Amino acid sequence: MKKLINDPNAVVADALSGLAAAHPGLLYVSHVPAYVRRADAPIAGKVALVSGGGSGHEPLHTGYVGPGMLDAACPGQVFTSPTPDQIHAATLAVSGGAGVLYVVKNYTGDVLNFEVAQELARGDGIEVESVVVADDVAVRDSLYTAGRRGVGGTVFVEKIAGAKAEAGATLAEVRAVAERAATNVRSMGVALTSCAVPAVGRPTFDLGDDEMEVGIGIHGEPGRSRMPLRPADDVVDMIMEPVLDDLGVVAGDEVAVLVNGMGGTPLIELYVAAKRVAEVLASRRLEAPIWLVGNYITSLEMAGLSLTALRLDAELKALVLAPARTLAWPTGVATQ
Amino acid sequence: MKKLINDPNAVVADALSGLAAAHPGLLYVSHVPAYVRRADAPIAGKVALVSGGGSGHEPLHTGYVGPGMLDAACPGQVFTSPTPDQIHAATLAVSGGAGVLYVVKNYTGDVLNFEVAQELARGDGIEVESVVVADDVAVRDSLYTAGRRGVGGTVFVEKIAGAKAEAGATLAEVRAVAERAATNVRSMGVALTSCAVPAVGRPTFDLGDDEMEVGIGIHGEPGRSRMPLRPADDVVDMIMEPVLDDLGVVAGDEVAVLVNGMGGTPLIELYVAAKRVAEVLASRRLEAPIWLVGNYITSLEMAGLSLTALRLDAELKALVLAPARTLAWPTGVATQ
Repeated sequence: MKKLINDPNAVVADALSGLAAAHPGLLYVSHVPAYVRRADAPIAGKVALVSGGGSGHEPLHTGYVGPGMLDAACPGQVFTSPTPDQIHAATLAVSGGAGVLYVVKNYTGDVLNFEVAQELARGDGIEVESVVVADDVAVRDSLYTAGRRGVGGTVFVEKIAGAKAEAGATLAEVRAVAERAATNVRSMGVALTSCAVPAVGRPTFDLGDDEMEVGIGIHGEPGRSRMPLRPADDVVDMIMEPVLDDLGVVAGDEVAVLVNGMGGTPLIELYVAAKRVAEVLASRRLEAPIWLVGNYITSLEMAGLSLTALRLDAELKALVLAPARTLAWPTGVATQ
Repeated sequence: MKKLINDPNAVVADALSGLAAAHPGLLYVSHVPAYVRRADAPIAGKVALVSGGGSGHEPLHTGYVGPGMLDAACPGQVFTSPTPDQIHAATLAVSGGAGVLYVVKNYTGDVLNFEVAQELARGDGIEVESVVVADDVAVRDSLYTAGRRGVGGTVFVEKIAGAKAEAGATLAEVRAVAERAATNVRSMGVALTSCAVPAVGRPTFDLGDDEMEVGIGIHGEPGRSRMPLRPADDVVDMIMEPVLDDLGVVAGDEVAVLVNGMGGTPLIELYVAAKRVAEVLASRRLEAPIWLVGNYITSLEMAGLSLTALRLDAELKALVLAPARTLAWPTGVATQ
């Protein structure tokens, strides 16, 4: 697979250099150890939000660093957990004295390394709490984790916790609303093609010219089943129905929806999928006042999509719609 | 090539249905004839901006409809010009009595059909002016047009003209600043893979496993040369230097930069490219206070990127940084 890179082992470092050069007004980039923080951090008296994970899922998490979302993001190597020293350094850099919340996707390495960093920060006298996102209904356990994987729901958790922290809430309050968001969000994805990790140089898995992998993980981990590619409406039904069933929504509920591209799917196809998502929601008499449609959490150049539904209450809705200023949060969402 | 679609001939119609379902607070979608307008249009007394072009380049143009950018966008079929009746209907729908400006990419069909629509609107007593964007330095003429092709510079022209119109300027003033933006912007692209038009079902062109097409057009039209794939730094040099040379920038000039993905290139690779773009700019002692990095004008699932530079003056800079509220304009840009 062709890559627009220099050295396969320098992809993350080069991309961080690009990020630093392009957005100095918004972001500060530390190269060793690697983390990206708000240029104006630390904010005295504000709860700080730190996330991170393997690279290759951009814009997650660096694209969500900025006022109203994350204070810092720690990018690991491609599809590799960030190390405790990265997370610890980011924590020290953004701590404003009101505590720090970690938003962690449920992968064994991520959970472990954030736990170590939490211990280190507590040793420094910084109060740290964590919320783990485990929203993928496709499989119970997988290659990289025990329990459900953390995927697209993470974007909503980061937005909600970020807005709550920006509003001046305490660490306990930010953690509580982040937990409530994580509890009320579900996702599932499908892949039409594999991706290739630059340092590996070959596709992560093989998929036939007429096949799709239903329930794909964001690192190309196996899903529920492999089957012939079907029309978009059928594909949406196959992944949206389990998401809504597992979430347990009932007629009259409000949900926020993420129709997410995995990196290689044209935006026009995501809107074809959005059409069917709207039909599924209508058939269940669900209201969807908030939609994100685009590449929000990707798997390098993988073709495919994931669907995420977040059950809203008045506070969660207001927090998703609250202002934010980041590279990947769109200006148009607050208008709903 | 695998597509997440239903009927190859219904892709645009399905996607418009998705757009209508997802963003009713921001957009109103007319299906026949097809156009997308601001939900709150027409705005009395404001110059209205209308653009359009073939589908398959999303988020261009529908992603730029909203306060501070376009009043309406007219999507043609994939890689096919919108028809005069679409453009005429959009013009009638958004005209607020202060005149209408068309932003047209320089393709023969687009230019012709916008001209016909302009005549129709003038027959209705609506004052209409046009600005044609022709920023691609790769080739002089091409398959689809006489003269240079209109590509990534269009995003900046739409932002600048939109901000000027939003500020209450007259049609003559909006046209003048749009022309100034169009005169001061240059682009060039490179493809690593082809794309496939859904209704055709096969790749638009063939490219070897180790080849790239330098100077690619956004419909897959041939560029300047085909050659073995090179490291990202070399690729950036090969397309950024001609862009800057043609623009005629000199040390001390300020530019806005667009590092644009063609649809199938991971964001992390675009930031690898951004690193080198910053080095090239520094070597010429150019300042770049504004960067867009992401998928802003695509060619379906094509892998590759294009680079755009806009020479700034104080007014152009302020207009790019002015607020906008659209699906694809990021919240983070105004912070530079």
